[in-house]
Amino acid sequence: MKDAVEFVSPCPNVVVIGAGFAGLRVCQGLAKVPVNVVLIDRHNYHLFQPLLYQVATAALSPADIAFPIRRIFRYQKNVSCVLGNVTQIDLSRKCLTIDNSQEIDFNYLIVASGATHSYFGKDDWLSNAPGLKTIDDALFIRKRILLAFEEAENELDESAQRAKLTFVVVGGGPTGVELAGALRQIAVKEIQKDYHHVDTSTARVMLVEANERVLKTFHPDLSARALRDLGKLGVEVRLNSSVTSVDDGGIKIGEERIDANNVFWAAGVQASPLGQSLGVELDRAGRVIVKPDLSVPGFPNVFIAGDLASATYGVNNLPVPGVAPAAMQMGAFISKVIAQEIRAVHLVENRPPFRYWDKGSMATIGKAKAVADINGWKFTGFVAWLMWSLIHLMFLVSFRAKVFVMLNWGYTYIFQSSGARLITGEFKPRIHKFRDVTPN
Amino acid sequence: MKDAVEFVSPCPNVVVIGAGFAGLRVCQGLAKVPVNVVLIDRHNYHLFQPLLYQVATAALSPADIAFPIRRIFRYQKNVSCVLGNVTQIDLSRKCLTIDNSQEIDFNYLIVASGATHSYFGKDDWLSNAPGLKTIDDALFIRKRILLAFEEAENELDESAQRAKLTFVVVGGGPTGVELAGALRQIAVKEIQKDYHHVDTSTARVMLVEANERVLKTFHPDLSARALRDLGKLGVEVRLNSSVTSVDDGGIKIGEERIDANNVFWAAGVQASPLGQSLGVELDRAGRVIVKPDLSVPGFPNVFIAGDLASATYGVNNLPVPGVAPAAMQMGAFISKVIAQEIRAVHLVENRPPFRYWDKGSMATIGKAKAVADINGWKFTGFVAWLMWSLIHLMFLVSFRAKVFVMLNWGYTYIFQSSGARLITGEFKPRIHKFRDVTPN
Repeated sequence: MKDAVEFVSPCPNVVVIGAGFAGLRVCQGLAKVPVNVVLIDRHNYHLFQPLLYQVATAALSPADIAFPIRRIFRYQKNVSCVLGNVTQIDLSRKCLTIDNSQEIDFNYLIVASGATHSYFGKDDWLSNAPGLKTIDDALFIRKRILLAFEEAENELDESAQRAKLTFVVVGGGPTGVELAGALRQIAVKEIQKDYHHVDTSTARVMLVEANERVLKTFHPDLSARALRDLGKLGVEVRLNSSVTSVDDGGIKIGEERIDANNVFWAAGVQASPLGQSLGVELDRAGRVIVKPDLSVPGFPNVFIAGDLASATYGVNNLPVPGVAPAAMQMGAFISKVIAQEIRAVHLVENRPPFRYWDKGSMATIGKAKAVADINGWKFTGFVAWLMWSLIHLMFLVSFRAKVFVMLNWGYTYIFQSSGARLITGEFKPRIHKFRDVTPN
Repeated sequence: MKDAVEFVSPCPNVVVIGAGFAGLRVCQGLAKVPVNVVLIDRHNYHLFQPLLYQVATAALSPADIAFPIRRIFRYQKNVSCVLGNVTQIDLSRKCLTIDNSQEIDFNYLIVASGATHSYFGKDDWLSNAPGLKTIDDALFIRKRILLAFEEAENELDESAQRAKLTFVVVGGGPTGVELAGALRQIAVKEIQKDYHHVDTSTARVMLVEANERVLKTFHPDLSARALRDLGKLGVEVRLNSSVTSVDDGGIKIGEERIDANNVFWAAGVQASPLGQSLGVELDRAGRVIVKPDLSVPGFPNVFIAGDLASATYGVNNLPVPGVAPAAMQMGAFISKVIAQEIRAVHLVENRPPFRYWDKGSMATIGKAKAVADINGWKFTGFVAWLMWSLIHLMFLVSFRAKVFVMLNWGYTYIFQSSGARLITGEFKPRIHKFRDVTPN
């Protein structure tokens, strides 16, 4: 604020909801613009979601992929961070409410509150098939996975033991593929020798996908390669398969019953409920249908960014995908629009449209394998995995994280032993029939 | 088991309760002895408790100081790890019960289940003055500390803000001194620049001690030095002061009321309730009074080790203190006694007495300061801190931990920014009067 040219007085308020990839970029883009920025988030950290499955599978610690928001804006004095839940937004009064008590006025509002899981109307599946969106989700899944192996070690009843060693991942997108791969990886490589009674490498990992291929947003060649790599790793992939029921003992695929103590959900996303509270038009996934400049129809000072936006780009009106690079590009675009308006470079009527630059997509499969599609170039195997690793390290927010995640990966790669195999929080092992651990 | 000489057949069962410093050493000492070892713990990890305060103050992640027990015994095939709570012990039937359901027989039993907090009969203080014994305790305290600063930033009501920025640590032993020092350290150095509205360096940290000096088990010169160093850091030390009440808004010291949203308990320890269930003689702190060979009177095959043991040593019958080195020495001693009996080297009647070798004690004060008493040599300041750091790194269980903790400390030392400032789990900020974050 101090060294910026003062075009407007008093300083306009730019309120940003959500400190994900989109929200962060909006704030960073306004560093030298004479505005008050208020960044509101439910958590005190920015989460690097692409690596969240590695927390769930005990490879990384939460602090490796989550960074205090305040630390990021330590030197950007025009940002105020607020920890809280936005409970109401009044677009016409230009005001919102946090935790039903704190009111904040805005001149510009950016809603970037992301997405959550979708159980396609079967919300009762949630408790038995947890999804992976937050650090707490990841720690819960980690606890479930580690507890399953602990229980299996001590379980004499064969069918109960089998159910404990059966993991079902629903959804064959990048998260599902990466989670399933990592699960087989730990069972076969990292923990097998630690269990003296049960052979953890017999763990069954099943990946259930409703479509005819995994990674359906990727090139078909890469889907085929991913399928092959998953097979080699020992992941059972069920294509064209729909889950018809989920309970605490397993799932049904069509009429087939699969006993599994652990089912994880990576199948669908649903936009944050905040979209609905705006009272504007939404698409089927609950996302806000935005104008080409990412603003809400009728409210040029309100923008939607990231997974909450239903946006299109280019002459063919292609949908902008719900991925991190798209969120970052939206955030940067919005900050630029606001900066130019405040500096009176152009008027609201002359805003440019948002253009998405698709840099490609990538997913890992277990250790040292990946598929990547970068600007139309296709990579697989070890080379793709190296690229995946480097690109993810590059985009980690802090230097500290880059160093520690790299060392963690290096260590795990060399010593085949992951770093964070802790069962924290409340739990209670459930055993049907105890193995005699003192066989005399 | 495979390469050990078989003196006894069938293999005797040695059951160890607790995977702390004592329990771990017992198991490790039995590596080449022809016994079945069963190691039972409530958690799946061994916790390096001396660094737990660093998890509570966001310097380290849980995985830096907690190690999967199974991983430690990966290559020691005569150890079976069981995750569970021992709910009953029957010394005469030589049998115990886990989680009210799994029965395990033993030939030898080692109870090393440690200690918990003691509120000196005021158990209702627990909810407002959490103690620091487990990873979950540390994560809870971390959440409370970070949330207090978040709330203070957004709080306009001055007295409410002051209470949020007041931290009381009850108990001037090593844990209390280290926790209080670390609290001032983060408030003054590590987070101050991250808060744009409140000056976190004004945070008041109070250390309350009932005795006339802190670190009362240390040499008086070191207590005096620690008091001075704490003062320089800005910790308010109240000696000869007893807490007379604790509620959710603060404490009373005698008749003086101190408003503080956060009170942490480091004042007293009480032996694990498992001691009581044995039906043998206990001391005032609930510890089992053991014979010179650490066995339970009347039950030569049952040993007590670590904080649960009320043991004495030497001609003057000095009490063995409740510290990690004592626990390790007890564990090693017991494993040796068992090994020799199984190899028929000596009989039960001829067991040697346990001898404690007091190697000294040390405690850090904030960053780069410590006091240490090693074999009668006294060290203070930076030198003592270096020794403290090296010795703690040496005793960390895994190579991975040594590397990562050292790097973490190095990074924090250079960049003055701690690594794990995450608020995880459920929480709800409580603000009395909101600061206007958009001041127009």
